[in-house]
Amino acid sequence: MRIVIVGASGTMGKHLRSAFEKEHEVITAASTGCDLELDITSTESIENMYRQAGTFDALISTAGPTFVGPWKKLKDKEFRQGVEGKMMGQINLVLIGQYYISPKGSFTLITGALSHDPQKNFANASTANGAVEGFVRAAAIELENGVRINAVSPTVIENSPQYFPFFPGDIPVTMQQLEFGFRKAVFGANTGQIIRPY
Amino acid sequence: MRIVIVGASGTMGKHLRSAFEKEHEVITAASTGCDLELDITSTESIENMYRQAGTFDALISTAGPTFVGPWKKLKDKEFRQGVEGKMMGQINLVLIGQYYISPKGSFTLITGALSHDPQKNFANASTANGAVEGFVRAAAIELENGVRINAVSPTVIENSPQYFPFFPGDIPVTMQQLEFGFRKAVFGANTGQIIRPY
Repeated sequence: MRIVIVGASGTMGKHLRSAFEKEHEVITAASTGCDLELDITSTESIENMYRQAGTFDALISTAGPTFVGPWKKLKDKEFRQGVEGKMMGQINLVLIGQYYISPKGSFTLITGALSHDPQKNFANASTANGAVEGFVRAAAIELENGVRINAVSPTVIENSPQYFPFFPGDIPVTMQQLEFGFRKAVFGANTGQIIRPY
Repeated sequence: MRIVIVGASGTMGKHLRSAFEKEHEVITAASTGCDLELDITSTESIENMYRQAGTFDALISTAGPTFVGPWKKLKDKEFRQGVEGKMMGQINLVLIGQYYISPKGSFTLITGALSHDPQKNFANASTANGAVEGFVRAAAIELENGVRINAVSPTVIENSPQYFPFFPGDIPVTMQQLEFGFRKAVFGANTGQIIRPY
């Protein structure tokens, strides 16, 4: 299988790359340091990435820029970080990528437990996650040629201990659990699902 | 109680206005034809509305512009209708309005069943609804001075028969059920809830 991983320079992306490249052809994309250069806030850049990627069977996104910080600092301007990044960035990966992906291919986006289980300082991520989850369910009944779409929704992940203090009492999702979530989405047959790998 | 209704010129807004003005002071806002003029896609216009509204105890929003149409026509540009309208419009009503609302006041936003129960042609609304629902849960743990926030999430409503063909088998929510949903949000004590009035 030929798999494009977007956000492949991040914590999750790196793990998924090394896990999947043993058995599959992996093409990586990120703002820097990967096979393909990508600014997910730009539809032109997304279009350009797909043109360069060539045929592929699965698109995995772990790209999720959002504003993290005190509620009192969260105004329209800061809110746009999550709107343009984790939300519209990932949505545009699908709206554009549907015309490049192989029949029976799959999109797997990243959301997170914050959509239903909020934490202070993360209202922007809660919103972006909720948006992407609503989109995934809707896109699943619209995509053609057997193309599937799902999202993986972890809590805080074990490789990001800097976030632990913001998620009191949340049992961190291991990198292996996270990987299993993406495996279920990419190699399973479901569509329109929000997979909680814990 | 002094209640501001945003989107008061629409089907839902008109009903809520006549229901609530019997016992409360209602100030209406919409793009045209109401007490206050408001463009919810503009943070300046929102700020201006609040300055003119004066003290208030509850903000009800029934304002939900989104793109409705074939999936194939849904690109970044069309998607922005829901992003700027139903999503950021309502979110900015809260981000800005929190500094104007009375202590123990409440915000009640409008979402809809499409967030979890998609229909063809409405992916933009599913996404905006999901975003607002994620935001409502997150804002509920951030707002201060006892200010509450909830959303009312109906299916298709009985006064919009033009939408019935798009919601096969969905039992329309009556205007009275819808009103009860908003009553629960405004006069109840809950916060962070997505109220399904059916």
